[in-house]
Amino acid sequence: MSKYAIGIDFGTNSCRTMIVDILNGKELANSVFDYPSGEAGIISDPKNPNLARQNPADYLQGIKVTVKNALDQALTADPSFSAMDIIGIGIDTTGSSPMPVDQAGQPLCFDKRFANNPAAMVWLWKDHTSHAEAELITRKAAELRPEYLAKIGGVYSSEWFWSKLWHCLNTVPDVFAAAYSFVEICDWIPAMLTGETDPLKIKRSVCAAGHKAMFNAQWGGLPDADFLSALDPKLGNLRERLYTHAYPSEERIGFLSPQWAAKLGLKQDIAVAVGAFDAHMGAVGAGIKTGTLVKILGTSTCDVMIWPNTRALKDIPGVCGIVNGSVQGGYFGIEAGQSAVGDIFLWFVNNLVPDAYGKTTEEKFTRLESLANQLKPGESGLLALDWNNGNRTILVDVRLTGLLLGQTLHTQPHEIYRALIESTAFGALTIIDRIEAYGVAIDEVVNCGGLAAKNPLLMQIYADITNRPMKVSQSDQTPALGAAIFAAVAAGGYEHVEEAQKAMTGIKEVYNPNPDNHKIYKELYALYKQLHDGFGIKDGGGRMYNVMKDLLEIRDRVRRAK
Amino acid sequence: MSKYAIGIDFGTNSCRTMIVDILNGKELANSVFDYPSGEAGIISDPKNPNLARQNPADYLQGIKVTVKNALDQALTADPSFSAMDIIGIGIDTTGSSPMPVDQAGQPLCFDKRFANNPAAMVWLWKDHTSHAEAELITRKAAELRPEYLAKIGGVYSSEWFWSKLWHCLNTVPDVFAAAYSFVEICDWIPAMLTGETDPLKIKRSVCAAGHKAMFNAQWGGLPDADFLSALDPKLGNLRERLYTHAYPSEERIGFLSPQWAAKLGLKQDIAVAVGAFDAHMGAVGAGIKTGTLVKILGTSTCDVMIWPNTRALKDIPGVCGIVNGSVQGGYFGIEAGQSAVGDIFLWFVNNLVPDAYGKTTEEKFTRLESLANQLKPGESGLLALDWNNGNRTILVDVRLTGLLLGQTLHTQPHEIYRALIESTAFGALTIIDRIEAYGVAIDEVVNCGGLAAKNPLLMQIYADITNRPMKVSQSDQTPALGAAIFAAVAAGGYEHVEEAQKAMTGIKEVYNPNPDNHKIYKELYALYKQLHDGFGIKDGGGRMYNVMKDLLEIRDRVRRAK
Repeated sequence: MSKYAIGIDFGTNSCRTMIVDILNGKELANSVFDYPSGEAGIISDPKNPNLARQNPADYLQGIKVTVKNALDQALTADPSFSAMDIIGIGIDTTGSSPMPVDQAGQPLCFDKRFANNPAAMVWLWKDHTSHAEAELITRKAAELRPEYLAKIGGVYSSEWFWSKLWHCLNTVPDVFAAAYSFVEICDWIPAMLTGETDPLKIKRSVCAAGHKAMFNAQWGGLPDADFLSALDPKLGNLRERLYTHAYPSEERIGFLSPQWAAKLGLKQDIAVAVGAFDAHMGAVGAGIKTGTLVKILGTSTCDVMIWPNTRALKDIPGVCGIVNGSVQGGYFGIEAGQSAVGDIFLWFVNNLVPDAYGKTTEEKFTRLESLANQLKPGESGLLALDWNNGNRTILVDVRLTGLLLGQTLHTQPHEIYRALIESTAFGALTIIDRIEAYGVAIDEVVNCGGLAAKNPLLMQIYADITNRPMKVSQSDQTPALGAAIFAAVAAGGYEHVEEAQKAMTGIKEVYNPNPDNHKIYKELYALYKQLHDGFGIKDGGGRMYNVMKDLLEIRDRVRRAK
Repeated sequence: MSKYAIGIDFGTNSCRTMIVDILNGKELANSVFDYPSGEAGIISDPKNPNLARQNPADYLQGIKVTVKNALDQALTADPSFSAMDIIGIGIDTTGSSPMPVDQAGQPLCFDKRFANNPAAMVWLWKDHTSHAEAELITRKAAELRPEYLAKIGGVYSSEWFWSKLWHCLNTVPDVFAAAYSFVEICDWIPAMLTGETDPLKIKRSVCAAGHKAMFNAQWGGLPDADFLSALDPKLGNLRERLYTHAYPSEERIGFLSPQWAAKLGLKQDIAVAVGAFDAHMGAVGAGIKTGTLVKILGTSTCDVMIWPNTRALKDIPGVCGIVNGSVQGGYFGIEAGQSAVGDIFLWFVNNLVPDAYGKTTEEKFTRLESLANQLKPGESGLLALDWNNGNRTILVDVRLTGLLLGQTLHTQPHEIYRALIESTAFGALTIIDRIEAYGVAIDEVVNCGGLAAKNPLLMQIYADITNRPMKVSQSDQTPALGAAIFAAVAAGGYEHVEEAQKAMTGIKEVYNPNPDNHKIYKELYALYKQLHDGFGIKDGGGRMYNVMKDLLEIRDRVRRAK
C-alpha cells in the first residue's frame, strides 16, 4: 500500500503543492497558486526600487487552494489514492524573508494599526532597502566578531535577517517597537499549520538561522547580545525574544492542527517537518550528495553542496554560507548563488524585445532562443555582467548593477539575449572556481528549477562555458519534492534522507560540453573576469570599483529629492 | 529681381536639392530622393559588418529627380520664379567616400567587368573595413612623417582616403589595378555635371584633400611618393594619377555642361562650385564664424570651427583635422565629430523598444521622448558610452564599441533612451573641452541637422550637460543651404562667403542650461570620463583598454571561421 507526502513550496510569485508517492517519487499532483497581492505577489514602492515585501495572507490562501486542488488531482491521477495515506507535510520558502509578529504569533500586518504598512509585512529575500545596515554589520563584525563573517563568506548581506530587522528599527521604529518577535516565513508557515501561537516556542530552521542570522551552535546560537547591542541596544534586547536552538528539516515541528486538518481535508496526526529554504530542499530533491553541486536555476539561482561534518572544511570567502545541518543532518550545507538569472532574461524580454519577435513573452522567448541558438560563441562581440540585481557570490554586493558591452549599430536582441545567458554562465563558473579553490571538489553538476527544464540553449551554454556535463534532475519541481522527502522522513517513512533520495530522485537528461565552443568561451571568460574584478573588487585590476556605486548613490539622491 | 542658387546635398541615405533666394536665404524648394540601391542606399555584407558601399548611379538619378521636382516646387511657391534666374549650383557630399574611376572618369562599377562588385563602388564614409591599414598608416607616419599626423589629430582613420585605397589594393587587387584614379564623390559629382571626363583635370576639394588625404600645400600637396611607397609601391605609383592642387568651394569648378543643362532644364552657363563635405558646407549654412562651434547633428555628428589663418593655431590631439581653407578661404577649418549619434538612437528604437511604446519608429520616438523628458538627470542610475560606431574624436578609434552600465531589473526603455542621449552629450562635451584646452575659445554653439530641429529633449540635455546655451540654426537643411551659398559666391552673386551668410543664415531658437541639472551632470560626466579613459586610452586610468578590442578580434575570427 502506498504512502504519500505533501511538499509545499513557497516561491517569490506563487506557491505550489505537490503530492508524492514516497516509494518511487511519483508526483501525483502539482497545484500552483499565484499570490494575489501587489504585482505578482510582490509589494513594491515606485520611489524605492530596493523595496520588495509580501503579504502573508497570500500564503494562507495559497495553502487552502493548492492542497485542495492537489487532492483532487491526485485522486484523478490514481483512483486508489486516499488523503488518509498522507503521512507528512514539508514546507520550503524563500529566505531570508522575515516578518514581525505579535505575542500570539500573528503577523503585525494582520493588526489593523499596521494594515497596508509594508514594514509590517514579509521582508522578501530580494528586498535591498537595508544595504547601509548590511555594510555596517559587516564592518562591526570584522572589528568585534570576525568569526561570524568567516562562515558567511566574509560579507553580511542586505538580503539577510539582521540587516532587515535593523533597517526596520532605523526607518519604521513604531513597527519594530510593536513587534514581539521576528519569524522567517519558513518557520512561521509550518508552525502556524501545527497551531503553535507562541513565537518563542517555534522550532526554527537551522537553514535560515545559520545562513541568514549568523546562528551557530559553536558560539551559542545567535550573535551574542553584546554584539547586537553594539549595533543597536534594541537589537540586543530583541535577542531574548528570538530563539536559542535551531533544527534540521528531518525533525518534526509538530502535527497538523485540528483547525487546519479540517480546512484542508486531511488527518490531524500528520507530521509537519521543520521548514527550510527552497534551494536547500530543492538540492535534496535533486539528489544532492558529497561532490554534487546542485544548481537551482530560476529567477535567481542557488548553488548548494554538502560536506560531511566529520571532515575538515575551510571557510570559502564570498560564498554565502557554510552551516552544519542546513541541507541535511550530518553535513555542512554550503550555499552560494546568483542574485538574478531568470529575472534578467524576463526583464530583457519584457522591456527590450520588440513585438517582431512575438506577441507574448513566451513567443518572444521561443524566437530569441531559436535565433540565439544559431550564433557561435563570440560571434556577437557582446559581453555582459550578470549583476542587474547585484552579486551574491563571490562579491556579496548588492550595490552592483548590470553592464552590457560591445554593442554596435548592428546588434540584435537575440545577440543580447545570448550574451545575457552567457553572463550568468560566467557567473556560475566564477562560483565553481571559487568553491574548488578551497578544496571542495565538484564531481558532478545537477541542475533543477524552471530554467534547467525549459531552456536547452542555456543548459548547453552552461556546459560549454564550465566545460562540465550539465545534468538535469528528473523532477521539474525539486524544492516541493525535497519538502516532500523531508515530510516523509519527519513522519518516519524513511529513517534517513539518503534512503528517501534513492527512492524518490533521479537524473533526466545530460548536456555535454562542446570543446570548440569551450575554447572560445575560455577567452571570453578571461574578459568577463577582467570586468568582474575591475568593477567588482575594490582596488581590483580595473580601478572601476566606484563607477556602479557612485551611480547608485547619485540615483538614490535624485529620487529622494524628486 | 531675385536670383537663385541651387544647393544639392548628398547624404548617407538620400540626396536633397534646395533652391534658395540669394537675397534673403528664403528656401523656395526642398526635394528629397531616397537612394534605391542596397538598404537605404547602403550596400552591406552580412559577413562583414564593417563594409558600407554606395552605388554612384543613385547620385545621378537623384540629381535628375530632385532638381526637376525642386523647379516645380519653386514655381508653385513663387509664380514669379524662373529657372533662368538660377546662377549657380553647389554640391556637398559625405566623405571620405572615394571611388575608383577609369581614364574617362567613369566609376569602375559602371564597367560590366566590375558590375555588382562592391569594391568598384563608392567606399562610403562609414565603411570600416580598412582599420588594419589605418593602424599601419598611423604607425608609418609616426615613424617617417610625424608632421602628417599633427594636423589630423594624431591618428589616421579607417574612414579615410588612404586607408580605403590601401585596403582595396590589399584585398581586391584587380579593382585597384583597373582603377586609373580614385575620386571623392564631392569632386566627382560636380565635375561630372560640368562634363569633365579626365580625372586628372578635376578641381579637387581642399576640404576632402586636407581632412582625409593628408593634403597640405605646405609640404607640396599629397603625402610624398616615398612615404606612400613605404606603405606600398603601388600607392606611390598612384600618386601621379591623383592631384597636385586643391581648392576651396568659393572657387568655380566649371559650368554646367550642355547635356546636363538639357537634362535638368537649366541654363548652360550656370557656375558649379568646387564640392566639399556636408558638414563643412553645413557649418557655413549655419552661419559659422570665429568663436562659433557648429554642430551638425544627424546619424553621426560633425563639429566644425574656423580660425583665421593669419593667427597661430596649435595642433589639437584627437581632433580629426585642421585644414587651411576647408570651410572657407582665409580660415583654418577645424573638424571634429562623433561617429554615431542619431544612428545610436535609431538602432535602439528599431531593435530594442517593444511595441507598447508605439507601432512605428516615429511613434516610439515620440513616446520615448515624452517619458524620458519626465526623468531627472541621474535618476535612472544608467550611464552609457556612445561608441556603437567607434569614437572619432578625441580617441580616433573605430575598434571601440558601445557600453551600457547601471541596469537593474527595473530599467525601462525610456531610461536607456535618455542615457544614450546623455552619452552623446558627454561625448560632445569631451570634444568641447579638448578644443578649448588647446586655445580655441568657443563663444557660442550653433546646432543644425535633423536632431537639432526635431529633438528638443536632446537639445536641452546638451545645454544642461555642456552648461552652454544651445542655439539652433534657422535652416533645417544647412548643408544644402551652405552649398547654395557657395554656389552664389562661385557665380559672383556675392564676393565673400561672410556677406552671403549675413543675408542667407540665422538663428531660430535657443535652449538655455538648467543649473540644477548641470550640477548632477557634472558628477555623471566624471564617471563618463572614467569609463571613457578606462576603455578608450591605452594604459589609461582603468586598464580596460583591451576589452572591447579583444572582443572584436574574437568576433571577427569567429565570423571568418563560420
